[in-house]
Amino acid sequence: MIKLLILFLTLAFVAMPGAAQETKQYNLMPAPASLRFQSGRLAVNTSFIIAVKGHSDARLLAAIDRMARRLEVRTGLAFARGLASDAAAATLVIQCQSAGKAIPAVDEDESYSLEVSNSQAVMNAPTVVGALRGLETFLQLLGAGADGYSIPAVSIQDRPRFPWRGLLIDIGRHWQPMEVIKRNLDGMAAVKLNVLHLHITEDQGFRIESKKYPKLHQLGSDGNYYTQAEMREIIEYARMRGIRVVPEFDMPGHTTSWFVGHPELASKPGPYQIERKWGIFDPVMDPTNEQLYKLLDGFLGEMAALFPDAYLHIGGDEVKGSNWKENLKIQAFVQQKGLKDNHGLQAYFNQRLSKIIIKHGKKMIGWDEILHPDLPKDIVVQSWRGPQSLAEAAKKGYTGILSNGYYIDLIEPAWRHYLNDPIPENTTLTPEEQKLILGGEATMWSEWVSPETIDSRIWPRTAAIAERFWSPREVKDVDDMYRRLAIVSAQLEDVGLLHKKNPAAMIRRLAGSLSGDEYVVETIKNLVDVIEPVKGYKRGAMQNATQITPLTRLADVARPDSAAARELAKAMTGRLYVKSGDEVDRVTAMLTSWGYVGHSLPNLIKQSPIMDEALPLAKDLEEICEIGLQAIKYLNYGNVPPDEWRASKIARLEAAAIPKAAVELAIIQPIKELVIAAIEQEKRKTMSAEEWKKHVKSLAAEKKKQ
Amino acid sequence: MIKLLILFLTLAFVAMPGAAQETKQYNLMPAPASLRFQSGRLAVNTSFIIAVKGHSDARLLAAIDRMARRLEVRTGLAFARGLASDAAAATLVIQCQSAGKAIPAVDEDESYSLEVSNSQAVMNAPTVVGALRGLETFLQLLGAGADGYSIPAVSIQDRPRFPWRGLLIDIGRHWQPMEVIKRNLDGMAAVKLNVLHLHITEDQGFRIESKKYPKLHQLGSDGNYYTQAEMREIIEYARMRGIRVVPEFDMPGHTTSWFVGHPELASKPGPYQIERKWGIFDPVMDPTNEQLYKLLDGFLGEMAALFPDAYLHIGGDEVKGSNWKENLKIQAFVQQKGLKDNHGLQAYFNQRLSKIIIKHGKKMIGWDEILHPDLPKDIVVQSWRGPQSLAEAAKKGYTGILSNGYYIDLIEPAWRHYLNDPIPENTTLTPEEQKLILGGEATMWSEWVSPETIDSRIWPRTAAIAERFWSPREVKDVDDMYRRLAIVSAQLEDVGLLHKKNPAAMIRRLAGSLSGDEYVVETIKNLVDVIEPVKGYKRGAMQNATQITPLTRLADVARPDSAAARELAKAMTGRLYVKSGDEVDRVTAMLTSWGYVGHSLPNLIKQSPIMDEALPLAKDLEEICEIGLQAIKYLNYGNVPPDEWRASKIARLEAAAIPKAAVELAIIQPIKELVIAAIEQEKRKTMSAEEWKKHVKSLAAEKKKQ
Repeated sequence: MIKLLILFLTLAFVAMPGAAQETKQYNLMPAPASLRFQSGRLAVNTSFIIAVKGHSDARLLAAIDRMARRLEVRTGLAFARGLASDAAAATLVIQCQSAGKAIPAVDEDESYSLEVSNSQAVMNAPTVVGALRGLETFLQLLGAGADGYSIPAVSIQDRPRFPWRGLLIDIGRHWQPMEVIKRNLDGMAAVKLNVLHLHITEDQGFRIESKKYPKLHQLGSDGNYYTQAEMREIIEYARMRGIRVVPEFDMPGHTTSWFVGHPELASKPGPYQIERKWGIFDPVMDPTNEQLYKLLDGFLGEMAALFPDAYLHIGGDEVKGSNWKENLKIQAFVQQKGLKDNHGLQAYFNQRLSKIIIKHGKKMIGWDEILHPDLPKDIVVQSWRGPQSLAEAAKKGYTGILSNGYYIDLIEPAWRHYLNDPIPENTTLTPEEQKLILGGEATMWSEWVSPETIDSRIWPRTAAIAERFWSPREVKDVDDMYRRLAIVSAQLEDVGLLHKKNPAAMIRRLAGSLSGDEYVVETIKNLVDVIEPVKGYKRGAMQNATQITPLTRLADVARPDSAAARELAKAMTGRLYVKSGDEVDRVTAMLTSWGYVGHSLPNLIKQSPIMDEALPLAKDLEEICEIGLQAIKYLNYGNVPPDEWRASKIARLEAAAIPKAAVELAIIQPIKELVIAAIEQEKRKTMSAEEWKKHVKSLAAEKKKQ
Repeated sequence: MIKLLILFLTLAFVAMPGAAQETKQYNLMPAPASLRFQSGRLAVNTSFIIAVKGHSDARLLAAIDRMARRLEVRTGLAFARGLASDAAAATLVIQCQSAGKAIPAVDEDESYSLEVSNSQAVMNAPTVVGALRGLETFLQLLGAGADGYSIPAVSIQDRPRFPWRGLLIDIGRHWQPMEVIKRNLDGMAAVKLNVLHLHITEDQGFRIESKKYPKLHQLGSDGNYYTQAEMREIIEYARMRGIRVVPEFDMPGHTTSWFVGHPELASKPGPYQIERKWGIFDPVMDPTNEQLYKLLDGFLGEMAALFPDAYLHIGGDEVKGSNWKENLKIQAFVQQKGLKDNHGLQAYFNQRLSKIIIKHGKKMIGWDEILHPDLPKDIVVQSWRGPQSLAEAAKKGYTGILSNGYYIDLIEPAWRHYLNDPIPENTTLTPEEQKLILGGEATMWSEWVSPETIDSRIWPRTAAIAERFWSPREVKDVDDMYRRLAIVSAQLEDVGLLHKKNPAAMIRRLAGSLSGDEYVVETIKNLVDVIEPVKGYKRGAMQNATQITPLTRLADVARPDSAAARELAKAMTGRLYVKSGDEVDRVTAMLTSWGYVGHSLPNLIKQSPIMDEALPLAKDLEEICEIGLQAIKYLNYGNVPPDEWRASKIARLEAAAIPKAAVELAIIQPIKELVIAAIEQEKRKTMSAEEWKKHVKSLAAEKKKQ
């Protein structure tokens, strides 16, 4: 307690309190296609009430009720229940022209307009889904002034840039129960995403009930699967929020779990067990087996009836040919049919599959690998390989969506995903070809996420991706994105997401029997603030984990995109490299504090063996902060450090840059810049602040690449 | 970020970091009946495995699995799945003699013993429920040392002091969905509570499906009720954790919601609407109406079949006689049957009810008011009026449970409930009569709790109550209780309780559009740390609220039992009142910091009209902290403050003691002690530190009572 309080005294003169400002800035995310502020604002008080003109239905009314309840929760005001009978007297009038598609579809009109004056807000939407999108905008517009809550007077015309804006959740590798899916659907709706792509089957789990082939889920899931009734509940929950549910059944690879109950479908004799490890595995369907097509016809027919969406995803990625090569019967088949190679065999399989899918009234979607001239043009290619392969597909006339660059499991910062455009400015596609790019999907692959951690991996970064898919290409100011992302992130808690709550609780847990001691908990939290989980696919090499490994360690508590590191980098303006100034004080304060975190941690985690792996990290943190402070001193005194210092400190930073406990210290790069600045300080006299900063940054980056 | 970090520097010399200690202290709650430490400890590592000897069943195996998973989550270790085939090689051997009662019952044997040596832990239990209790103890024993996790070598013989240890949750006034009930059942199991008392029907809601009389739930619940299938799911979830579910249907008062569908049952003609306000209302069943008994026979028959517990609770509290008095037919009936008065009429009703309940194979339980010589001796009286009325019942030969003193909705501190004993030391009951006191129940009445806030009202205080019901009477060290409570409170997060997560998120929400600004959020958090919601029934008089009022304001975010206030009081040892010393520094630091919170808050909440009500509170906080600091100065300089100061500061403290925003500043009393100490300082020369402290405390308390 006391430890937390002191800070205000110390910092009153250092940090700017977040003062209220009245600007024409908005907090919307995704940004609307067009927005114009008017003068004035619409009061939101206890007489807030909504009227519906034109089309109305259960979906619209439920969305209105949810929005009103969220508005109540935020303002603490109780509104009268029910709709206004007199539209003229309503605070918000919703004029909806039609229900829109009975089943959410890729060609749904999601546009809406919103006109807010001093006296009333009026929303127009051609469909209910458009109105749903507008309701989220309305809620995000909520502002406040001395006279209470209000919505600024504004004129908004809005529609999405791309019609396919998705989030893939992999429920195969790590099971995610109903409440995880539901709260994430609410999060998706809040940022106007419209496709939940469920990756339902994997080597590690078969997650849907098949009434026709019950051995599939009974033996392939450890009991962790959705019954068809439960899946219908998810689909309806999504539909109520204007979200499609696209099911993926990954074939012919990634299918170990199918073979536990049906070894006869595999290319190699069984028995098979559910895979517990992570990776790309050998088991693969046998495309020469007619039984396989019979089962797929039955199973996919069942799934086509269960999932109302027009598309059915057949995966098709990462097929290892080893079991095909080892099987003489299969090799004979390849020869006989003139299929050339395994790729040809997979194309044969996809063609057979395509016919089954068409027969059941669906369109096919699959990963890059399915692309083959023999497939119909209305398939969708989902690109995990890159924008080039997506563009190639478009040039061949195929529709496609981009997932490369949106792999949120890889722990990249939000800005990187944000600047990744499905149709970059320098695209070589013709306008007609560009229309074939339907949008994109963020992918939450689940090797390293549990129901406890998944929200903090998806959010808030996915909100930035949602803006990329919805908003004009020109909306790409990274600083402003982060400003709005912080606000939206907090608001996402109101729909039930646990991306902030769970890491806080996990930090308390890491304190072990000292979890009641706020000082210990705060110290761990401060460590967690300056680390990030290792990126890319590094963690698997560092920690030996399987499906049953508890994901409750430091790397699971750490989150991508350290705000603390961003704050440090931000404080290091050009002025930092000249003597004194507020920024120097701030940077000094940060490094001093973090250094002390590193210094004091070891003594505080003695009751927590789970934190033993943090000890080398704590040492690194203490020492790199000390290096940074030394660099600041050299800069302040105008002394160039001796060669010995230079060599040893750079080496120390590089040693600290080696990940430990499957996490990285996120503040190494800015500290390296301080060191370089100290070393190169003679040159700064010859440069402008901007040039100097650029010079330092480039040298620091160079070192990093070595 | 930066703001949080500075604190470590400042405080390193002030606060003691929570250092690891190896003592023979234990962190168990409730404390076992008997515990003896041995030397050594049992390692908990990746080879942890459990063996079951003797009786085994699905309930035991599920509990073992849950315990092992919680152990994994805490330690980050993955254990092999399944049980050890060789008991000799197991880490923990569970020897269970029998399944125990098929349906959890009040006379279940819940005892167990646990012997932990360096090489193995052995648990013996006569029933599975006993083993369940022991598993919770085992998990709470988890400790750690330099060589990793371990369980201390220990010999425990444990059994509950009382067989009825309950938590009442009122789902009538504010609906609580399934997940609330489930996570609270897990919390109950963690602290060995064994009765979930569901208060199912109220003026404000009829929360269970009746297939025979569907208008009851269809018209009486706003759609917020449990289907019978859902209720069976709850009962089974509870049974799996050795917890009984006792249903309450409050009659003949508190029944407005029944009359919406069945106005003919009421003592006054309808129509009726679901009550939205809080209070004691007139509507009451008509005990002279034979139709009523027909419906109750049908409905309670249905409920008797649904709820397997031996007891059925008929409420019976707070019957207002007004509608009976106004009804001539009813008054004629009273005369004709010689019932004397309304109390006699209620007794008549209860006798009729008793027969119906007996007919359906159940025993009756009700609140104090049902006590009447004509009722059978095996009814249970639940006392909300007090220990005297409970003792009276026992003297008349009735069994009873105590709820008076455990009303957790009244926001009293844990120690008050903790020291409230169902059979106090000075009891006048004979040992035979004492046996009739079965235990007690904490009561979570729900006027002021939503699904978002209910956990922070129930937990952690209910863990202290659970200890009162389970542990020997002699276990009553309040300081040690609070020490262990902090640990258990953190552990309760692991079973899904949101008592820490939700208030943190609600604080972020109160920051409005500045919720992304950690400085603003921390300032509000620091305010929340030193306040408590108003106690008793005061809030209703201060805030005009109904069932639809959003419970998201400051009073909802505030929690009972401010730890900050406790810490301040603790820092004010006898030594404080003499010059200097660590404590003076700590108290000075606390008051300075809190004063600054009060000072800076107004500027930070300009974007949050919901926080406007906190403005006078912030002013109070700033000024009372300043008063406290002035008092410390007078004490330090040895100057007695002038009369003017004395009068104005005491008056200011008393003005600050008037609740605002339905919350109280929890630190006024210690500050008043500082002021008294400054005023009375001449006398301290004549007294020992202890005497002096007592003197000051008593004067400060006197003032308070005025």
